[in-house]
Amino acid sequence: MKDKKTEISIAVIKRLPKYYRYLGDLLDDKIVRISSNELSEKMNITSSQIRQDLNNFGCFGVQGYGYNVQRLYEEIKKILGLDKAHNVIVVGGGNIGKAIINYQGFRKRGFNFTAVFEKDSDVIGQRINGVEICSIDNLEEFLKNNHVDIVALTVPSKSVYNIYKTVINYDIKGIWNFTQIDLEGTENIKVESVHLTDSLMTLSYKIHEEDILKRYRQ
Amino acid sequence: MKDKKTEISIAVIKRLPKYYRYLGDLLDDKIVRISSNELSEKMNITSSQIRQDLNNFGCFGVQGYGYNVQRLYEEIKKILGLDKAHNVIVVGGGNIGKAIINYQGFRKRGFNFTAVFEKDSDVIGQRINGVEICSIDNLEEFLKNNHVDIVALTVPSKSVYNIYKTVINYDIKGIWNFTQIDLEGTENIKVESVHLTDSLMTLSYKIHEEDILKRYRQ
Repeated sequence: MKDKKTEISIAVIKRLPKYYRYLGDLLDDKIVRISSNELSEKMNITSSQIRQDLNNFGCFGVQGYGYNVQRLYEEIKKILGLDKAHNVIVVGGGNIGKAIINYQGFRKRGFNFTAVFEKDSDVIGQRINGVEICSIDNLEEFLKNNHVDIVALTVPSKSVYNIYKTVINYDIKGIWNFTQIDLEGTENIKVESVHLTDSLMTLSYKIHEEDILKRYRQ
Repeated sequence: MKDKKTEISIAVIKRLPKYYRYLGDLLDDKIVRISSNELSEKMNITSSQIRQDLNNFGCFGVQGYGYNVQRLYEEIKKILGLDKAHNVIVVGGGNIGKAIINYQGFRKRGFNFTAVFEKDSDVIGQRINGVEICSIDNLEEFLKNNHVDIVALTVPSKSVYNIYKTVINYDIKGIWNFTQIDLEGTENIKVESVHLTDSLMTLSYKIHEEDILKRYRQ
């Protein structure tokens, strides 16, 4: 039995969605069971890493049999909280906001987009993939009267802090942060950031790493 | 002197863009120097972590003075390879493709978008933020005749593998992968992925973590 207080490392957490995706693909291919070696090869993760990761949550494999794909898929679904539905609102109706509302994969996983809030009065009242575009002026009223789990923030930097200060007053559970600003969570509100600029800069680093290390480490 | 072969950990690499952003903000605010303690507070990273991270690339701080903001900014710019320009093409002209082409911050950092390739014949010949939308049928010819550093991939899953197989035959340096498919790099081509589905699932995990750990660790 593990210590209940042991935290799961962020590296393990980041791999869980990948397990879930690969197991979903195996199910689509009607694969009933898989050994940790086979899963390892498919996912490019060592089999001992897979066993270690999953052992954080219990014992899912059977010696000599491997993993039952359906069972492991369902367990990881629960671990990721995807057995529950989540209401999501999007603040900012630009290209990123549109992209996430239009992507059907999120709905399949129980994320329901209930409204998008926008400053640009020309588009208010229109719909994106069935989701109504509301005025940003009605954001607080909406949060007061509707159950919202997740706020996806896709606004320009100058608007971030005001919106952040507003939404954390309500009973939301998470902020999905696409802005250029690093946001802190609170005790009850978790933050997950998608930082496109950092990602492109990281790619640039990787491209030049060999030269850079030569230069700095002579 | 460090071992030239020592690799920089991915955690350090991921923090470099953050240093670069914060130092850029300090420069905008006309701050000339900063102690590692002040930088630590601003960035929510311990000052010993900051010193360790930067020591991977040389000695940038001066005892009792701290860091010269301009100098450290310029050094990290070089470490990130941002002192060089990069030509980027976008394959897939949907909302994500549009979002990255429209974001001015990338251009400011030397990423020049030179073309976007799209299957939808209705939009071919149009422009997004000045960048011409070309037919996907002309992708190979473009790669043959133009210098391309980075391919941003924003196409649906079913098209990924064919495009990947095509582009890795050319002298590109990196793939910025927005697709649902995990891609491997080659010896000469680095991959950096932005996986929106994984990110939303990670947020869901964080939201439910306390309950999940209670359930699995009794």
